[in-house]
Amino acid sequence: MQIAVDVMGGDYAPDEIIKGAVESISEIEGKILLVGPEDVIEEKLKDYNYNLNRLEIIDAPDVIEMDETPAKAVRQKTDSSIAVGVRLVRSGKADALVSAGSTGAVMAGSLLKLGRIKGVKRPAIATVMPALEGETLVLDVGANVDSTPENMVQYALMGNIYAEQILHKSKPKVGLLSIGEEAKKGNELTKETYQLLKELDINFIGNVEGRDIFTTDCDVVVCDGFVGNTILKTAEGLSKTVFEMMKEELEASLIAKLGSWFMKSSLKRLKKKMDYAEYGGAPLLGVNGVVIIGHGSSKNKAVKNAINVACESVERQVLDQIKENINERTGRADE
Amino acid sequence: MQIAVDVMGGDYAPDEIIKGAVESISEIEGKILLVGPEDVIEEKLKDYNYNLNRLEIIDAPDVIEMDETPAKAVRQKTDSSIAVGVRLVRSGKADALVSAGSTGAVMAGSLLKLGRIKGVKRPAIATVMPALEGETLVLDVGANVDSTPENMVQYALMGNIYAEQILHKSKPKVGLLSIGEEAKKGNELTKETYQLLKELDINFIGNVEGRDIFTTDCDVVVCDGFVGNTILKTAEGLSKTVFEMMKEELEASLIAKLGSWFMKSSLKRLKKKMDYAEYGGAPLLGVNGVVIIGHGSSKNKAVKNAINVACESVERQVLDQIKENINERTGRADE
Repeated sequence: MQIAVDVMGGDYAPDEIIKGAVESISEIEGKILLVGPEDVIEEKLKDYNYNLNRLEIIDAPDVIEMDETPAKAVRQKTDSSIAVGVRLVRSGKADALVSAGSTGAVMAGSLLKLGRIKGVKRPAIATVMPALEGETLVLDVGANVDSTPENMVQYALMGNIYAEQILHKSKPKVGLLSIGEEAKKGNELTKETYQLLKELDINFIGNVEGRDIFTTDCDVVVCDGFVGNTILKTAEGLSKTVFEMMKEELEASLIAKLGSWFMKSSLKRLKKKMDYAEYGGAPLLGVNGVVIIGHGSSKNKAVKNAINVACESVERQVLDQIKENINERTGRADE
Repeated sequence: MQIAVDVMGGDYAPDEIIKGAVESISEIEGKILLVGPEDVIEEKLKDYNYNLNRLEIIDAPDVIEMDETPAKAVRQKTDSSIAVGVRLVRSGKADALVSAGSTGAVMAGSLLKLGRIKGVKRPAIATVMPALEGETLVLDVGANVDSTPENMVQYALMGNIYAEQILHKSKPKVGLLSIGEEAKKGNELTKETYQLLKELDINFIGNVEGRDIFTTDCDVVVCDGFVGNTILKTAEGLSKTVFEMMKEELEASLIAKLGSWFMKSSLKRLKKKMDYAEYGGAPLLGVNGVVIIGHGSSKNKAVKNAINVACESVERQVLDQIKENINERTGRADE
């Protein structure tokens, strides 16, 4: 297996990306292709000891800046790390691409070079969020805004497969995010989508609400990309705030400080559980190749996780399964 | 001042509602009107000592169930606590209504009996969410789904006044919830709304994201009711989950348990800060009367808070200010 890693993507690129990629070599079976300006990568690699047989540098001298229009930049800068990365996937030289770069640029590059899976109208970004026990897959979290009910149905199908294969859930419970459990609650989009999901041969459990993400009531939450992205950022912000408040509280009194010393490891474990970087690696489902988008603030740990997700997606043949499933359903729908 | 309290609304009605109302008597200047079935209220009141001059029972024998269609139920059951409550406000006998009943029923009753403020197309429910320092007003959180850009502008204007008067913010920083800070990021609704908000004479700070709710970067967050409601429920769910995870972690080891004993009061304060019941009382802005909607799971504490919010809204003449402001802006827009 060969995983291409976009060395130039993300707030902490290239240092943390290279660090995570090098660290992951010993954890995965296969080879890492570091994609970015050769001179930069070579310079950074001097800091590490690594198995040369398991690492390859693929030169991609162009750099896309965060303030460039993603689609335009990817088209113009054909030697950017993202453009080169998706080309590696298209040609079969890489089995998957991991990038923590601009979501828009990764999307645009993937659509341009890999295209969509036949039958898929719009790709979706799926993300795993921590639940009280286990985890919940939420999609779309930002590939599209203004989705149609047909788009939402495809998110549900792709999420269903991903949850089965990667999160190891049997008959995943698929819920539609709305503002009340009753079928009639919601906006135009969710009310129409509800009727379509009801007809599918998946374990559709009806409408769910934001709070259900964090419980075991639901394995896959389907929503429009605007709503999903908002949820994700709200959860990130709140989670960060709670820990900051906790820190303030604990530092406010000596006795609390003493207490917190006793429970250091417990608090650390809790923080780890809530840490979205731990869950790094959101698959871009629906494009014709395995593409994993890392969080913009990915550090080495998140990069390693994203690489693991990429490997598992390849091993479990998620792409082929989505292809089969979407064609089957699309076929059925046409009958 | 006379505040009508819907005794039959909410998961813990009538007990917790009556408890909260009676407890609030000593804290507010004015009179509480308990609205609900007279016999039920009289029976429950036997448990309390209270100043008879400051409490009045207003009989409302009909009860609206949670599973009834709200608009229909309020129209048919003209002697329900909500219908009677809004009539009290309309007639001027009460200065405000507090209800933790079905949001849909309170909305429908208010629109039916009080109507909208002249110039307001759609009312909005505003809610206060805790930030790291202070708090942030989010609206709409569920009065409407499928809002128009014009609706969103009115939410911004009403939220601006409420934040000024009740949250005591001078020149509140008003942000538009979207999926990126740049003006071009968002869906059709937010992109159009952005252009309209830019022209208003308020402190519009542009697009904000879910995470900004919990910081001091923003005082008022404007969004569609579907998105707002989702945010609110996601935040509630996550907050609850973090504390449950914390509890599990702390009980997992003796030493952590010992530590948590030391920091009991710190953890309690933190929980209080994150407790949405503390912030009980979401104003229904844009209807022609002061109506405060309590959380469905309101207990006495939340009821007391909602009553306080009602009193302050009356004292600070929020209603008149919205009337003036909306007319002024609408007038300007027509010029």
